[in-house]
Amino acid sequence: MITEIAQIDVKPGMEADFEAGVKAAAPLFKRAKGCSGMSISRSHEKPQRYRLYVKWATVENHTVDFRGSADFQEWRKLVGHCFASPPEVEHVTETVHAF
Amino acid sequence: MITEIAQIDVKPGMEADFEAGVKAAAPLFKRAKGCSGMSISRSHEKPQRYRLYVKWATVENHTVDFRGSADFQEWRKLVGHCFASPPEVEHVTETVHAF
Repeated sequence: MITEIAQIDVKPGMEADFEAGVKAAAPLFKRAKGCSGMSISRSHEKPQRYRLYVKWATVENHTVDFRGSADFQEWRKLVGHCFASPPEVEHVTETVHAF
Repeated sequence: MITEIAQIDVKPGMEADFEAGVKAAAPLFKRAKGCSGMSISRSHEKPQRYRLYVKWATVENHTVDFRGSADFQEWRKLVGHCFASPPEVEHVTETVHAF
């Protein structure tokens, strides 16, 4: 399993809209091939900065299957207007889980 | 609860040393005031980039209590030589857990 991390800076005042859009988009991710989890975290130091975490079976489930789907367009319709800049996306794998 | 995210780029060839240092440091975090979890993830796109995730009861448990402790010096002794640059640290709170 891999985790997509999308660092998203939202426009000032769009925090509540963004969080509502993420909640509304949950069913799109739930039905996406290989997707097993989705959450967002908000930064203390930069309150307009969020990180979206999405768990995928493979990187391609995100980059090929989801990005190529109509649901990706729906996702962007729900939250894209909140973005201050293009999201910065990386994929990570947990290598040590100490406790 | 808050999560510390430290983005750490390690020097080329130091990946195994860094991961071993993190494992060796687990007891330092386990006994730290307010600490309830610690793990690292590695980037697919930038394999020398790690993210350390540490769960704390409060931001101050990290920034005041832990950073002011002798165990912080021990932690840096175990992994500091692996750092290619100073870690970039932020604190985040989960605001939406969709599934």
